[in-house]
Amino acid sequence: MPSEFTVRRRVEFSETDMAGIVHYSNFFRYMETVEHGFYRSLGFSVVQDRHDPPVGFPRVHASCDYWKPLRFEDEVEIHLRLIEKKEKALTHQIVFRKVTGDGTEEVARGKLIVVCVAKKADGSMGAVPIPSDMAAKLEITNPLPPPERG
Amino acid sequence: MPSEFTVRRRVEFSETDMAGIVHYSNFFRYMETVEHGFYRSLGFSVVQDRHDPPVGFPRVHASCDYWKPLRFEDEVEIHLRLIEKKEKALTHQIVFRKVTGDGTEEVARGKLIVVCVAKKADGSMGAVPIPSDMAAKLEITNPLPPPERG
Amino acid sequence: MPSEFTVRRRVEFSETDMAGIVHYSNFFRYMETVEHGFYRSLGFSVVQDRHDPPVGFPRVHASCDYWKPLRFEDEVEIHLRLIEKKEKALTHQIVFRKVTGDGTEEVARGKLIVVCVAKKADGSMGAVPIPSDMAAKLEITNPLPPPERG
Amino acid sequence: MPSEFTVRRRVEFSETDMAGIVHYSNFFRYMETVEHGFYRSLGFSVVQDRHDPPVGFPRVHASCDYWKPLRFEDEVEIHLRLIEKKEKALTHQIVFRKVTGDGTEEVARGKLIVVCVAKKADGSMGAVPIPSDMAAKLEITNPLPPPERG
Repeated sequence: MPSEFTVRRRVEFSETDMAGIVHYSNFFRYMETVEHGFYRSLGFSVVQDRHDPPVGFPRVHASCDYWKPLRFEDEVEIHLRLIEKKEKALTHQIVFRKVTGDGTEEVARGKLIVVCVAKKADGSMGAVPIPSDMAAKLEITNPLPPPERG
Repeated sequence: MPSEFTVRRRVEFSETDMAGIVHYSNFFRYMETVEHGFYRSLGFSVVQDRHDPPVGFPRVHASCDYWKPLRFEDEVEIHLRLIEKKEKALTHQIVFRKVTGDGTEEVARGKLIVVCVAKKADGSMGAVPIPSDMAAKLEITNPLPPPERG
Repeated sequence: MPSEFTVRRRVEFSETDMAGIVHYSNFFRYMETVEHGFYRSLGFSVVQDRHDPPVGFPRVHASCDYWKPLRFEDEVEIHLRLIEKKEKALTHQIVFRKVTGDGTEEVARGKLIVVCVAKKADGSMGAVPIPSDMAAKLEITNPLPPPERG
Repeated sequence: MPSEFTVRRRVEFSETDMAGIVHYSNFFRYMETVEHGFYRSLGFSVVQDRHDPPVGFPRVHASCDYWKPLRFEDEVEIHLRLIEKKEKALTHQIVFRKVTGDGTEEVARGKLIVVCVAKKADGSMGAVPIPSDMAAKLEITNPLPPPERG
């Protein structure tokens, strides 16, 4: 059962800033891309309107540690590992690796905690259990150990 | 009756790109800021849910001509002129001026055409007349003549 | 010789807005993606630092006409046609087509005019001829006729 | 001496996503806005080219915890507290409060760790001490205690 997912993308010009590197906020957009691709790989969309009531997965925590920059036209591998599954929440570890001539080099590492929510009778959103068909497909894996940094 | 509106804002770091200037797509975000501020100045929000049915104002055309760049921390004046009002559509001229030590200098000029839409009985969106209370407050003004460019 | 280029991408969640559709400014980011891919397909990067002096291609005009929205997870084909080549400027026509079950459907159409610039002796940027090795690879094609709109 | 800084801004339409709320990555753009405003309030720009060598302040860590959403046209107060100052690094706590009819309500809380870097003789970037004129103006304050969450 899948507990990991990887996408590759090329850095766009519009994602850089005047320092010549990918703006740090865009790593959070990249995290979302791999997260949604992961759900799609399981046969689900993050927009879960086929469940009743429809559920969503807002973030309650997002973080990223950066040690090398990404630049325009760099190819980057974004690797998601589902490292914790609770009744109503998932924790993803996200690893960013720049594709180099002879392999990859880790440049940043992030974490996302998402909560499953649905609209309650009073119209507000509240945490609910992850739908059972989705939960059944989610298996956790070990987090990667902290990177060795030179 | 108001037919013009101006906002000032400072260029954010995240709006620049690796060329050291504001990314061209962000001028379209600036256009929207002044457009929405204009509607608010009339007592309306662009999210018109107090009308029945609720109406929205998607763009059918957006354009911009650029002749000078904007840079980080530049202060920019964004000036909207409502230059055409039809039953179901509005045309805005948008002028971008960099604030300099002794005045302003025009750096770009844009145009937005927005159409008033509402959800139809079959669930799709279609053009509808601008609500009469809003239309009554909208008065057109002359477009600025083309800028002289050195 | 290449005068057209096409990329496909899937709409990201972060590209949508509260109207549930791709924010209109993001079509300009998509245009840049296909433009840069086009240059890469010719063996060039938009960051032309191997020329002396290094050249860049800022926009002097960008426009888009929209007739159908794009939504989250839609697959979109972005098709560039180089329709005009001058000594110092290029004009690209950009066609956006949503991939549907049995083909594609045009949803928007844009235009970009870019000028080749280099740093002048006084430090300012000015228009210069497109480098000859690049110009030699650029061949124009006919623009598509205006779309038929129902 | 200043160790705190606050800005207010209104949520823009382009900052929302199809869930109808501010996209989580935009909180990181907001953090940067208050961070740069803080430096400006001290008489510095984040682009420190008046120092020799010029220094910059890339992030090595960014995080945010979210408990309530922000929506279009909400007014939000973004409050920075400098909570740690090292020779080469600063830690900022960032508090997001939605402005309500009768006060404010905390909706999210973030942290940024930035490192002072300059270009080294070999062309690469490396951590350097924060310039003394800037360091002299920076005084730390206590972090806010964790929010009480209902």
